[in-house]
Amino acid sequence: MNRQQLVKEIFTKKSFLCVGLDTDINKIPTFLKDDKDAIFEFNKAIVDVTAPYCVAYKPNLAFYECYGIEGIRALEKTVNYIRGAYPSHLIIADAKRGDIGNTSAMYAKSFFEELNVDALTVAPYMGEDSLTPFLEYKDKWIIVLALTSNRGSHDFQLTTDNDGERLFEKVIRKTQQWSTEENMMYVVGATQGKMFKDIRRVAPHHFLLVPGVGAQGGSLQEVCKYGMTKDCGLLVNSSRGIIYAGHDEHFAEAAKEKAKELQQQMQTELEAL
Amino acid sequence: MNRQQLVKEIFTKKSFLCVGLDTDINKIPTFLKDDKDAIFEFNKAIVDVTAPYCVAYKPNLAFYECYGIEGIRALEKTVNYIRGAYPSHLIIADAKRGDIGNTSAMYAKSFFEELNVDALTVAPYMGEDSLTPFLEYKDKWIIVLALTSNRGSHDFQLTTDNDGERLFEKVIRKTQQWSTEENMMYVVGATQGKMFKDIRRVAPHHFLLVPGVGAQGGSLQEVCKYGMTKDCGLLVNSSRGIIYAGHDEHFAEAAKEKAKELQQQMQTELEAL
Repeated sequence: MNRQQLVKEIFTKKSFLCVGLDTDINKIPTFLKDDKDAIFEFNKAIVDVTAPYCVAYKPNLAFYECYGIEGIRALEKTVNYIRGAYPSHLIIADAKRGDIGNTSAMYAKSFFEELNVDALTVAPYMGEDSLTPFLEYKDKWIIVLALTSNRGSHDFQLTTDNDGERLFEKVIRKTQQWSTEENMMYVVGATQGKMFKDIRRVAPHHFLLVPGVGAQGGSLQEVCKYGMTKDCGLLVNSSRGIIYAGHDEHFAEAAKEKAKELQQQMQTELEAL
Repeated sequence: MNRQQLVKEIFTKKSFLCVGLDTDINKIPTFLKDDKDAIFEFNKAIVDVTAPYCVAYKPNLAFYECYGIEGIRALEKTVNYIRGAYPSHLIIADAKRGDIGNTSAMYAKSFFEELNVDALTVAPYMGEDSLTPFLEYKDKWIIVLALTSNRGSHDFQLTTDNDGERLFEKVIRKTQQWSTEENMMYVVGATQGKMFKDIRRVAPHHFLLVPGVGAQGGSLQEVCKYGMTKDCGLLVNSSRGIIYAGHDEHFAEAAKEKAKELQQQMQTELEAL
């Protein structure tokens, strides 16, 4: 999916919601747990009810890898299901990969050819050759960790260098020497509030993937106030807040309501543009 | 495996060699490729001949993930084989993981419980809560990316902050507030040469995992000169230089010779301590 298609989806659906499929077997409704395909069945139910209200899905790899081969199978099945049933949704593998050049090329093959997702989150610490192999795929995206939503984001990302530039700003500035807003986004946590202003100073046009609304405490209104651009420029993710909204046989209905609620807030924001 | 056991292994075997199992189906001998378990069979042959000359094995996850479920199965089989046949070898999953706290906890479960390796490489960009979940496992290690072997290491890792500290130094200093040399090592590329002096200034006692000898051009002698401590403090990795030393039916013999050659150079360095 290219940028133009993504923007069109957002304005057609009046939503820039990304649903995080961080599916934890210990948190899904009891009646589903005995199903041998429990993770996939849970995901399928969530996807079917939320698809009208979101433009992207983001499975986090950790939640699948921890079940070994069965987990990877559930992930593949989920991606294939979304791809088949909802082909206009962006699929983001949240894997935070990054390695030396020849190894990143293997990861690129895994995610963009084998699993065939649209986008992959990547860690910038190892620099240019750890990211460029991912950029050789047409209509595929990398989403670079810039300023994350967690407490630990303060440890290194805010370090100011002797030119007065903070590390997350350097990451955003320097990665723009390697590619453009056509295939690169940045992760910026919703918990960062007014920092979105600083982000927009160095990345005025890039899409930002924004986790941390809901369970982690970020505010959608604040993110939009400081981070939104004329073509939206935001994908706001909610995982736990949507997928664990309910805990019984009505879990899908509860997830749908939560997704719809966020979509309506997003519609208001888009209409105010 | 704890630090004391690792040091004992090193001095018993007179080796601090780590063999990198970066097994690429396109590079293994043709006669093996048709085996349905080709990756595992290749790894098993390499492990059997190199075990007397090394103290650790390091499969890089990218090389397994790129074959989907079959790849993960080959990795599990390889880890189980080493664990059973050579229980005193340290097994390092080179995966460079790191995510927000609750997600890193899932990765910790994957690697330290399910796959059951001894050590995992981790990326520091997301800070404290991205690393601490891994530190709760007894006799398991994290190996934090500090100063990597690739060209891109210059992009961010060498950035000097306004206190005059470079990012890799800050990573090393700050992570020491979270744990000790008993369960934490650092990745420092062999290509960094004299920088090992600077590393030892901030991490005088920690083990360093050193990739980049061989194919990437680093020098073992230089690494030892500037990086070795009284209890060795080094695990030097070679991947391509060993596992692809031969390309025909004698590949295992060629790998053995290459591993033995490195072990003998290491013995010289250890005896000079």
